[in-house]
Amino acid sequence: MFSDTLTNIVLEKKSPLCLGLDPYYSRIPEHLKKNASPEEAILKFLVPIIDACSEHIVCVKPQLAFFEIFGSAGFAAFEKVCMFAKARGLLVIVDGKRGDIGSTAEAYAEAYLGKNRPYDALTVNPYLGSDGILPFVKKCVENEKGLFILTKTSNPSAGEFQDLPVGDELVHENIAHAVARWGMDDTGLSGFSSIGAVVGATYPDEMEILRREMPSQIFLVPGYGVQGATAEDISGAFYKGGTGAIINSSRGILFAFEDYENPEKFAEHSQKAAQEAQEELWAVTQ
Amino acid sequence: MFSDTLTNIVLEKKSPLCLGLDPYYSRIPEHLKKNASPEEAILKFLVPIIDACSEHIVCVKPQLAFFEIFGSAGFAAFEKVCMFAKARGLLVIVDGKRGDIGSTAEAYAEAYLGKNRPYDALTVNPYLGSDGILPFVKKCVENEKGLFILTKTSNPSAGEFQDLPVGDELVHENIAHAVARWGMDDTGLSGFSSIGAVVGATYPDEMEILRREMPSQIFLVPGYGVQGATAEDISGAFYKGGTGAIINSSRGILFAFEDYENPEKFAEHSQKAAQEAQEELWAVTQ
Repeated sequence: MFSDTLTNIVLEKKSPLCLGLDPYYSRIPEHLKKNASPEEAILKFLVPIIDACSEHIVCVKPQLAFFEIFGSAGFAAFEKVCMFAKARGLLVIVDGKRGDIGSTAEAYAEAYLGKNRPYDALTVNPYLGSDGILPFVKKCVENEKGLFILTKTSNPSAGEFQDLPVGDELVHENIAHAVARWGMDDTGLSGFSSIGAVVGATYPDEMEILRREMPSQIFLVPGYGVQGATAEDISGAFYKGGTGAIINSSRGILFAFEDYENPEKFAEHSQKAAQEAQEELWAVTQ
Repeated sequence: MFSDTLTNIVLEKKSPLCLGLDPYYSRIPEHLKKNASPEEAILKFLVPIIDACSEHIVCVKPQLAFFEIFGSAGFAAFEKVCMFAKARGLLVIVDGKRGDIGSTAEAYAEAYLGKNRPYDALTVNPYLGSDGILPFVKKCVENEKGLFILTKTSNPSAGEFQDLPVGDELVHENIAHAVARWGMDDTGLSGFSSIGAVVGATYPDEMEILRREMPSQIFLVPGYGVQGATAEDISGAFYKGGTGAIINSSRGILFAFEDYENPEKFAEHSQKAAQEAQEELWAVTQ
């Protein structure tokens, strides 16, 4: 099952690092864009980076928006990137933040958690309640896939609704309880559920509370690196030994080449950045 | 701007009806699926229906999940369906319920609210707060597009988080105030903002409260017909005369042919169902 597979790979590679694939077109090296369609340039950029980083990372997290912006051609590039990552032994977490109800949720679940698709997990939004989540959970159980439910996000205005007080707890704590409940029946030998939570790195105090509220959830943690959180800020997400959390870094790795004068070596710069992040993150978990 | 254009078309056609495009593959007539890829079958199903219904409806609302389920080929079918609807003079509201932050939200906004795209509006999820909404609002202002922000949805478990009590109001009322605020600077001559709200038809009492809380918002109302709400239930969404709300019907129109023995006449059955819905809805607004 997803949670066990993920946990095994983390321990084997000594890495909790997830490479976020946010291919901002304007930041892709110029030489890759010459005589290439945007979709081709995205592939020429991401494929060598995934290849170079693969020993340091556990999974990739393609951000669908950056592919959808190029319509069906962009979507085709997304499919190819995911197939390449799978061929490199990486897990693929689709960051779509989808959320809908009933038969529509079933359609999204089949689209990204279907049996023969090159994707292992999906991020989803819980605002619609159980009707919006259970069709995804069902598909995860059937096909040994994973889910990461937005609980507390990493952005500055995350608290606007997520931190509204409901009695003596906050909206996102209420959601955390639901996530723990939704994930109860999909827990593996590792002790972790395949139904995980997105918990931003930028609110370290809340992370420790949420770790207690959702003891069996794997946390997908955005906000490390460019968004401002340090490895120390994140340490509360892990269990001793390095399990329980996957830390995403996107721009810090993808665009590492921007600090240097040789953009044609972009993949090597990404590899170094990934290695540094891996070592820094693993150190705080031991 | 979007709100004025929409309002003018509603008054001209005497229709507040939106045709939801939820092409469940298994329910498409068999004769259309023979020797056709799923994407081709979807086009052979939706194009004649849009054509037959166009005088009774103001807009179409393609549900992205039912296209994404067929990957990039499905996405290409979505693009073609939208272009066809635009060519028939219909507005296109993309039901993607997207929601992300910062540059990712900008990418989604460009994907569905960009200048030369065949889409007029997008549905979005507010759980991430202002960071997740303002990039979309900005794009609407720039390109005269529209937004419908999930406020109170129509599903049975909608209340699980949306109705949590925060002081003396509910979470979704708090969101309604934010929607009214976000939409303030994008209000047209019609008095309506291009930043609207999704308000489910299945909770009529709350609809009247939300109508007062968001006086300038156009409501996109799901839940009419197959989901159980009647035209009477919805009447609180409208201002006298028929403005202020767009009522979605998907399955009741698309699959009207299932009640008859001649599936090859599916488009005619849809046309009749659309006409009936239009007349029933217009009657309660006058």
